[in-house]
Amino acid sequence: MRATVYVRLKKEVLDPQGDAVKRALDTLGFQGVENVRIGKLIEIELTPEAAAAPDLEARLRKMADEMLANAVIEDYEVRVER
Amino acid sequence: MRATVYVRLKKEVLDPQGDAVKRALDTLGFQGVENVRIGKLIEIELTPEAAAAPDLEARLRKMADEMLANAVIEDYEVRVER
Repeated sequence: MRATVYVRLKKEVLDPQGDAVKRALDTLGFQGVENVRIGKLIEIELTPEAAAAPDLEARLRKMADEMLANAVIEDYEVRVER
Repeated sequence: MRATVYVRLKKEVLDPQGDAVKRALDTLGFQGVENVRIGKLIEIELTPEAAAAPDLEARLRKMADEMLANAVIEDYEVRVER
């Protein structure tokens, strides 16, 4: 089973990588792009036992809090595919 | 309106960053993680005119092909939030 953690920069944090992509899209002739933000997509493959644990979502949030995201500048969202 | 491009390494491509995260999760005591893969989450804010264009999805795929993803090692998926 797979869980996905989506990590995004907080709205108030500047995203120079996203800005560079926006400018490059403009240069390539793609019009109508107002803003680009780049985040991370972390896909976690779990063993059947881990997937069946009743506290799975809490554990995934703990992983995100402790390691996958930097809470100072990033928000995250956890989704479990059952 | 927002479109999101999810960029993932192809299955056959090694992901050293994902492997490092997996090992770090093991070290932190998170059991039951079989594999971790790390991809990109590209959120594109579009002007209303661009969002209304009939060829929007084709244009987003063209952006991904030409710039957002490296087709040799990455796959992508485009989702439009209407």
